[in-house]
Amino acid sequence: MLVLGVDPGSRVTGYGLVEKITNQMNCIHAGTVAPSNQLPFHQKIHEIFQAMLGIMTRYRPEEMAIEDIFYDKNIKSTLKLGHARGAILIAAVQCGVKIFEYTPLEIKKAVVGYGRATKEQVRAMSQVILKLKAKPALDASDALAAAICHLNWTRHDIER
Amino acid sequence: MLVLGVDPGSRVTGYGLVEKITNQMNCIHAGTVAPSNQLPFHQKIHEIFQAMLGIMTRYRPEEMAIEDIFYDKNIKSTLKLGHARGAILIAAVQCGVKIFEYTPLEIKKAVVGYGRATKEQVRAMSQVILKLKAKPALDASDALAAAICHLNWTRHDIER
Repeated sequence: MLVLGVDPGSRVTGYGLVEKITNQMNCIHAGTVAPSNQLPFHQKIHEIFQAMLGIMTRYRPEEMAIEDIFYDKNIKSTLKLGHARGAILIAAVQCGVKIFEYTPLEIKKAVVGYGRATKEQVRAMSQVILKLKAKPALDASDALAAAICHLNWTRHDIER
Repeated sequence: MLVLGVDPGSRVTGYGLVEKITNQMNCIHAGTVAPSNQLPFHQKIHEIFQAMLGIMTRYRPEEMAIEDIFYDKNIKSTLKLGHARGAILIAAVQCGVKIFEYTPLEIKKAVVGYGRATKEQVRAMSQVILKLKAKPALDASDALAAAICHLNWTRHDIER
């Protein structure tokens, strides 16, 4: 079972592909999609859609774990986040990837064991769990954490 | 010049295709996309994307006029609206349709001459301007109004 974790954002969308073999989770690939600031908004959203479509086509994850929403955020940024999230959901449906949603609280609890953990704590724990040599970008580690949360939650093990 | 007007919504998205020949605007087609309430949210967003892609592929509008956002709305509905709007923008970029955005105030002013006009007043004026025999659905008439606003604003005339 290969899981794609996603931390959606119109400025930066983080993604991370995690596979679980027996008790060890491995990071297959992780990165960020950050459309140029020079682009008009609709082009940015389209770029996120295309990039996610590309990642899903290349790696063929079976399931996607995506961060659910902060409702307490600024309304303008929530609206922009909605556009980006829409782009990611459409790409997943296009590629037949099953969608699972987790709140930031659930993700932090699953990875750090504490719902109010900082982004840096989430990154540090993701690095430990996945035995990563280098620190991933903060947006990418949030995405990896979403994938870890999903794999812990659903207790998927690879049958090989 | 064929213009596609769109009134985005995750529950109901209205659309209307308007063509201007000399001084007369004609409605080529109008309707609504209303995904079933039984569908999970991401499937609804995907259905809006597919439906808009279908309309743009079939009618080949050159430009799209889409309603800009109400920032004063409830944050949950704004987020859902963001997803639907993202789906529509991605479809337009995919089809090479140029995107123009107008606030509800601009649309109402262009059609009724009054920024605080009701949906019913917008429908009545759209019906008169486009010489429609039947009343369009309220969501479709908002979309037609966006197209009328764009055609008035840009003073496009068809060269034939």
